[in-house]
Amino acid sequence: MTYTAPLADMRFALREVAGLQQISALPGYEHATDDTVDAVLEEAAKLAGNGLAPLNRDGDKVGAKLENGVVRTAPGFAGIYKEFVEGGWNSLPFDPEFGGQGMPWLLAATVQEMWQAANMGFGLVLLLNQGAIDAIHHHGSADQKSTFLPRMISGEWTGTMNLTEPQAGSDLAQLKSRAVKNGDHYLVTGQKIFITYGEHDMAENIVHLVLARTPDAPAGVRGISLFIVPKFLVGADGKLAARNDLRCVSLEHKLGIHASPTCVMSFGDDGGAVGYLVGEEGRGLSYMFTMMNNARLSVGIQGLAIAERAYQQAAAFAKQRVQSKDDGSDKAQPVSIVHHADVRRMLMTMRAQIEAMRALGYYTAAGIDGALKHPDRGAAKKIQDRVDLLIPIVKAWFTDLGNEIASTGVQIHGGMGFIEETGAAQHLRDARILPIYEGTNGIQARDLVGRKVAKDGGETMLALVAEMRSTAEELKAAPGDDLAAIRTALEAAADALEDATKWVAQSVKADLVAALAGSVPFLRLAGTALGGWLLARSALAAQAKLAGRDGDPDFLEAKVVTARFYAEVILPPALAQLGPLKAAGRTVFALSEAQL
Amino acid sequence: MTYTAPLADMRFALREVAGLQQISALPGYEHATDDTVDAVLEEAAKLAGNGLAPLNRDGDKVGAKLENGVVRTAPGFAGIYKEFVEGGWNSLPFDPEFGGQGMPWLLAATVQEMWQAANMGFGLVLLLNQGAIDAIHHHGSADQKSTFLPRMISGEWTGTMNLTEPQAGSDLAQLKSRAVKNGDHYLVTGQKIFITYGEHDMAENIVHLVLARTPDAPAGVRGISLFIVPKFLVGADGKLAARNDLRCVSLEHKLGIHASPTCVMSFGDDGGAVGYLVGEEGRGLSYMFTMMNNARLSVGIQGLAIAERAYQQAAAFAKQRVQSKDDGSDKAQPVSIVHHADVRRMLMTMRAQIEAMRALGYYTAAGIDGALKHPDRGAAKKIQDRVDLLIPIVKAWFTDLGNEIASTGVQIHGGMGFIEETGAAQHLRDARILPIYEGTNGIQARDLVGRKVAKDGGETMLALVAEMRSTAEELKAAPGDDLAAIRTALEAAADALEDATKWVAQSVKADLVAALAGSVPFLRLAGTALGGWLLARSALAAQAKLAGRDGDPDFLEAKVVTARFYAEVILPPALAQLGPLKAAGRTVFALSEAQL
Repeated sequence: MTYTAPLADMRFALREVAGLQQISALPGYEHATDDTVDAVLEEAAKLAGNGLAPLNRDGDKVGAKLENGVVRTAPGFAGIYKEFVEGGWNSLPFDPEFGGQGMPWLLAATVQEMWQAANMGFGLVLLLNQGAIDAIHHHGSADQKSTFLPRMISGEWTGTMNLTEPQAGSDLAQLKSRAVKNGDHYLVTGQKIFITYGEHDMAENIVHLVLARTPDAPAGVRGISLFIVPKFLVGADGKLAARNDLRCVSLEHKLGIHASPTCVMSFGDDGGAVGYLVGEEGRGLSYMFTMMNNARLSVGIQGLAIAERAYQQAAAFAKQRVQSKDDGSDKAQPVSIVHHADVRRMLMTMRAQIEAMRALGYYTAAGIDGALKHPDRGAAKKIQDRVDLLIPIVKAWFTDLGNEIASTGVQIHGGMGFIEETGAAQHLRDARILPIYEGTNGIQARDLVGRKVAKDGGETMLALVAEMRSTAEELKAAPGDDLAAIRTALEAAADALEDATKWVAQSVKADLVAALAGSVPFLRLAGTALGGWLLARSALAAQAKLAGRDGDPDFLEAKVVTARFYAEVILPPALAQLGPLKAAGRTVFALSEAQL
Repeated sequence: MTYTAPLADMRFALREVAGLQQISALPGYEHATDDTVDAVLEEAAKLAGNGLAPLNRDGDKVGAKLENGVVRTAPGFAGIYKEFVEGGWNSLPFDPEFGGQGMPWLLAATVQEMWQAANMGFGLVLLLNQGAIDAIHHHGSADQKSTFLPRMISGEWTGTMNLTEPQAGSDLAQLKSRAVKNGDHYLVTGQKIFITYGEHDMAENIVHLVLARTPDAPAGVRGISLFIVPKFLVGADGKLAARNDLRCVSLEHKLGIHASPTCVMSFGDDGGAVGYLVGEEGRGLSYMFTMMNNARLSVGIQGLAIAERAYQQAAAFAKQRVQSKDDGSDKAQPVSIVHHADVRRMLMTMRAQIEAMRALGYYTAAGIDGALKHPDRGAAKKIQDRVDLLIPIVKAWFTDLGNEIASTGVQIHGGMGFIEETGAAQHLRDARILPIYEGTNGIQARDLVGRKVAKDGGETMLALVAEMRSTAEELKAAPGDDLAAIRTALEAAADALEDATKWVAQSVKADLVAALAGSVPFLRLAGTALGGWLLARSALAAQAKLAGRDGDPDFLEAKVVTARFYAEVILPPALAQLGPLKAAGRTVFALSEAQL
């Protein structure tokens, strides 16, 4: 039940796939030298493995508790949070002007993987704070920034996102919370649900970002504004002043992430919570969209992280659990189950998909950096388009895989997997929220098809397909069976993704319902194909390093084998989503509601 | 959170797919008339829907509790169990000589689906008792049968299976429990784990079937014998006598099925529990194999059942939850989410797979009846071979789908799905044990490949492929696009299953490791293809009834549409397991243990 950050894999993905060197060369990231990055990774790995991971089980078992309006976090959480603040971990990617370290998002994503793998229930407070910082940084006034950002970036204060209401889940147009102007501020009233870390005992203040309607605002999304509603008001001297009129009225009983308090928040029971308008009235939802890419990337990283955690636990169990004879020998002695072919197939499936996710996740994070810092704004725009396209894939595909892999982790444990003390089941329970929050995976697929592919007729995706084909060309020159098998599969993946993209780009105009009916299979195909491409690039890089005797051959050979397993075993059923994605529209609405 | 037995679907599968009429015509089943079957189904549906289903949530929340050696079942369980006994529900398929009703296993499986869908935590006591009755019926002495069977068949006493020990999970050769002869009985000592309903308060006696070794027995499976070890000894007068030397020492904390007490049982702490040898020494494991088909079919039915339960809940939620605009219209008003294409895709996926499972499950149950009662023993043998082939597919494919479908049920609920009060998450937690117990799904796939296909070189499977092709021929004459699309898919399924079967039959001799590495993908392919075949037969039958204006057209048209959705959306990725099942063996062992 421990966790060891897979530093060698992370470094390989950073350098050989995501192009850390190019990112460090961008203006503003010069301080992200190899040495600095390595030092950050090493220290983060220690804190994740020795500090956070051991608290994960109690986080689940004891969980967060609400008593008299106060949320007490799980044992050890407040203490380790303090270490986070003192170590400056929170500030990694943020603006140095407000106390941040200005490191690349690529590095932040890598470190994020460690926090989330070690302890997802804890890690959520960091994610929410990151989103709140982003929103204020992009859209807050100078005054709001100087008041709130330094303490949020340091982590002394934490941020939340108050979006959902009972009648307004995915559909924020239905929001009812109200904000009435009152001098230099607004008075906010309403009830919000599913507020992650809406109340807790780890920080001295909590900065709530709240979506609400002003009195004369139009119906729908254009009537929604964004407000900063701090738990404690902040005086002109920067010191905490009066308690604001808001409280956590209950915590949800959830399937997983028990350590993360999911609050029902009530604003304005005593007349109205003091809130400060961010930016302009009526633009709340568009401000939320600004930070969506980072937030969705982070949730995708959670999917990768929980998968890695589940894999480590399952692999350790499989090496130690002795049961039945060896498949490949006549020896009568029982062996550890890692010697059974189907257990190997499960472990390789986990492993190959994890490596594909890590490659695509880091590649996307590097894109965020490129889009921010690339000196050529035309190039930056192209990179941004690519990021926008990849984000829904990263969010949905990673989180679906996170669930599948956590479930495979349970399976490898056999009967022990079903017993809570083993810990394998917790990963599955924790993972199950990921395809739901931060936009359900159906909404991600809708975004991919209805916005991202639709807006440029598939051009950005087809540019990726062209890159897949160049990698296939490079593979032609590479030696050996493994790379040849990878090339064949990569060509098939490029063909299928091209065909699917063209169909989607066409259908989204001609028959939207058909395009949407096929959106989830399309996303699955795209994610699996792009993951395969980056694993092919990994294999090429590993092959080159092997040829140059540069690095640990066991490690490098494993990269090649894993990429081949992925090419031959994981890719084919995903590419076979090509037929279903086109066909689903024919039948999905063929039954009446009464026939369902 | 209610459950309504899908009687129309069940009747359709019984009559049009499983051939209830032919089963009722078999000697010994003449009393299973249409009227009788209907009456049984109607009454069972009431008990399941009104009696069992409402207890499911408390069964999960309160669960079973161990206090001072006594297990108290969840609220209402003891009461409803009494109704079961009084209604004679337990005795449905058993031998009339011992008080059974001698009804077909096909009917028992249908009713079983209702119990398990309504309340899996409760339903397990019925399954375990069924297995114990089977074992005693087939292998017990006349005296053992007359002492134990009537009360077990009535349900006054319940049975258990005591197989697993901490060091002996899937590998029963490692069992250590001991049984020493002592006059007319044996003294049994040892610890058993994962004993379902090993102790409870619903019946006056519990009849434990225990696997243990006699002192001079050879090592391995040939040294294992089977013993009847009742909780209370039974006097010559049939009355309960002394308490036997066995007890439940703890209950497991599990991910799901909280209502089902999973006991650690200790035998012989005070010198030895009195046990009666069943049959001969050393044959315990082979006796267990006798009842394995029924037990594995039942677990498969649990997978189907939990899927149906999850579907009903998700469909009801989707019809009622209003969120966002209609995909296919310009109206600005929010609609219930069942109007969204991807929600439909999810519901259709659940529905189509459930119908395929029900078709294959009932078809297999009918085979059990045919094998038992067919007057031509040559024909009976062929049917038995087919059942033997299908059982691992039913167990593994259904239980994998049960998990996938329960997870989709959570997804359709969005954020509410993650909240325990909603009940969707319970189905997922409950379902997770199914791929593990009664032989993990990996073991099912190994059985399918290493025994069932290996023993006849694939002949039985290829006979099924031939039947798939005849159905495809029949479809040629059928009118309309839907049936044409189904035919195309069915031909592809037959081709893929034939190719895969021949490869497996060949490889299992030439390269066992490769065959085993591909066994799980092979099982997935086979299950999905066979399910598609029976849905094609359903569609043909529905089409014929529509043409003859025989039955509710809405119901019959839905059968055709659902079969088409399955053919076009569900089949292709499963058939694309053909490449992976052949390829997996190349890489699964390419990494060393240290590289994992």
